[in-house]
Amino acid sequence: MRAIIFNVGNELLRGIFLNSNLQELSKILLKSGIPVEKNIVLPDDENLIAEEIQNYLGKIDLLVITGGLGPTHDDVTKEAIASALNLELVFSETLYDSLKEKFKKYNIPETENLKKYALIPKGFEILNNPRGIAPGLKTVVNNTTIILLPGPPAEAKEILSGFLQELEKANYYWNYIRTFGLKENEILEKCKEELDAVDSGLYPDIRGVDIFLGSKNASLLEQTSQRVVSKLGKNVYGIGTKNIEEIIGEKLRKRKLTLSTAESCTGGLLGNLITNVSGSSDYFMGGVVSYSNEAKIKILNVPEEIIRNYGAVSKECAYHMAENVKSLFETDFGISITGIAGPTGGTPQKPVGLVFIGIATKEVAYVFKRIFGGTRIEIKMKSALESLYLLNLILEGTTFPENTFKV
Amino acid sequence: MRAIIFNVGNELLRGIFLNSNLQELSKILLKSGIPVEKNIVLPDDENLIAEEIQNYLGKIDLLVITGGLGPTHDDVTKEAIASALNLELVFSETLYDSLKEKFKKYNIPETENLKKYALIPKGFEILNNPRGIAPGLKTVVNNTTIILLPGPPAEAKEILSGFLQELEKANYYWNYIRTFGLKENEILEKCKEELDAVDSGLYPDIRGVDIFLGSKNASLLEQTSQRVVSKLGKNVYGIGTKNIEEIIGEKLRKRKLTLSTAESCTGGLLGNLITNVSGSSDYFMGGVVSYSNEAKIKILNVPEEIIRNYGAVSKECAYHMAENVKSLFETDFGISITGIAGPTGGTPQKPVGLVFIGIATKEVAYVFKRIFGGTRIEIKMKSALESLYLLNLILEGTTFPENTFKV
Repeated sequence: MRAIIFNVGNELLRGIFLNSNLQELSKILLKSGIPVEKNIVLPDDENLIAEEIQNYLGKIDLLVITGGLGPTHDDVTKEAIASALNLELVFSETLYDSLKEKFKKYNIPETENLKKYALIPKGFEILNNPRGIAPGLKTVVNNTTIILLPGPPAEAKEILSGFLQELEKANYYWNYIRTFGLKENEILEKCKEELDAVDSGLYPDIRGVDIFLGSKNASLLEQTSQRVVSKLGKNVYGIGTKNIEEIIGEKLRKRKLTLSTAESCTGGLLGNLITNVSGSSDYFMGGVVSYSNEAKIKILNVPEEIIRNYGAVSKECAYHMAENVKSLFETDFGISITGIAGPTGGTPQKPVGLVFIGIATKEVAYVFKRIFGGTRIEIKMKSALESLYLLNLILEGTTFPENTFKV
Repeated sequence: MRAIIFNVGNELLRGIFLNSNLQELSKILLKSGIPVEKNIVLPDDENLIAEEIQNYLGKIDLLVITGGLGPTHDDVTKEAIASALNLELVFSETLYDSLKEKFKKYNIPETENLKKYALIPKGFEILNNPRGIAPGLKTVVNNTTIILLPGPPAEAKEILSGFLQELEKANYYWNYIRTFGLKENEILEKCKEELDAVDSGLYPDIRGVDIFLGSKNASLLEQTSQRVVSKLGKNVYGIGTKNIEEIIGEKLRKRKLTLSTAESCTGGLLGNLITNVSGSSDYFMGGVVSYSNEAKIKILNVPEEIIRNYGAVSKECAYHMAENVKSLFETDFGISITGIAGPTGGTPQKPVGLVFIGIATKEVAYVFKRIFGGTRIEIKMKSALESLYLLNLILEGTTFPENTFKV
């Protein structure tokens, strides 16, 4: 099945929003075995949209169009499709009656322009929108199935999922192997044979390099995945789509272990990542954001002379932060992060990007020194992720004798 | 000037990454007066890319293409452009020599496949890449300027910026008016006349509704902006591109005021947002992530009977958290957030999305009750943003007698 996604909206072409719909919808299409072949982002311009629809009619199997179904003057997608297919827009009384309930629910004063929601290109099927107002719309023309979806990603995703459940699934299997600490190039050198054996792609981002493997042959995919995992060893932190905060969360919960955090340069990001996982209160007790030296001394009991002698960005300070937050919250693990996120505040001895990560366990405390590149926000993110990857290795039984910190 | 952006990469069509390049590049093009007319995302497929390039040659002024310039087997953009323009790919010794320095700098072992970096379509101009390896490439064919950029957004952005600095800027003025607490529809009703007077668009997201106003007439734009601001009053939190955490940061710094945070359901997100702003250590002293009840009692000194009698998600608990974090960190303001982020943990009395926000000032302590919709991550984000909007109003002199909390 050949599929294309159109996203309509000036905001996407003006850099105001990221195109989340492309990501969300292509992900669920792929899960249903429908790889997206192309994506086109169009402005709120009736003629341009109509022209582009005509370009693809009869040439592809599925055309998914998001955005421009609302009531405002720049919502013109329904007008464009009516013009491309030479159809009238008709007002649906039944639809409007059901929408009235929603206006009440969402506390939207009923104004004249809302009637636009109930205009539909003649003959289109209405797809209910459980999360918002504008319904999805569907038709088939010249063997091309056209689906119109509202712009908000959560709504678009839910309506499309409903449609996909009705489609027969195609037989395509895929997998992600998630790595950190390796460059794209190194993976390519180590696993060339495996990457050539199936559909493959390497996708580096701040979380590491994800390896996509896909094939119509399930057992070939399984064998290839296993070979890649065994070649890359400890640099693989997960298989599938779970991220590192979910992976450590599962391990902590299973073993009834608890965690607390002492954050300086990350300012709360580590706690935020950990608590993005539902149910994290089972193992995450909390933390201290000790952004000032006073907070490190007063709340985390870091000895004043440690900061005076070594500075707040030092392995000594990271050690005390990790140990003391562990004691303060009475947890099994304490993670600390102290560093220089920049762009200012660096010195030749302690440059921007220098970060110390402390991990205190019941038996031992480790301190790791890292120098990260990038913007302030990237350095914060790399620091928080690195601490989670390290904790994951420790939970897997890895020891770091050279990083053991002794007072 | 008519511009189109192509982004090449299977990862974008498989939902692995958000298409950040579209956002970053369209933003800087617009700032240079070049609105992007269309965006096409293509897979790593030489024929499809070549075909699409031919479709637009001579029809538009600027074609920006990102991605697929690397050394791996799925990088085929240079091959595609050579095929579309009927050019050879030639190996540039000079370029390769300069790249060797970069391999050293980035600690990349020199392997045979890296030579692919130095293959360029004959006659293309090389645009230096100060942030990475793969250089940008440029040519003009049939009056269409073609620019090839590497995939990583920071690199693509920097190379494109260099090119744009050389272009004569077009005269297009624009502005964003940033609002919260209003629905798209309400803004449309209140400001219809102003929105019709210039180019305009309403862009709702989790941070509120942004109003884009643009015109070739600078004084018309200025007058219209002022009228919109005066009509929307306190719902406008800023004009321009600064976000709420930057806006409150500037006010706190200017007045030498300090802030601390006590977070429960947001888990550190509020501190993270505040510390994304460079220099936030001037006014942000830190915070406590009191995720467990024990942490609220032990570290934040919330009286145990408050939690027993009213629960951790209560206005009483929010009050004590805000007051006590303010005392603990000796700051001018203390913000607290306690709520139910879900998806589990809700009850009929205290549903998912119920959040109490406390703001303790020198003179008074306020508690605000909110019920937010959405996913766990959305509820966390809405809670953190709402607390910043409220603090901003307080910094602007607004008082909330009905939200004053008295013990």
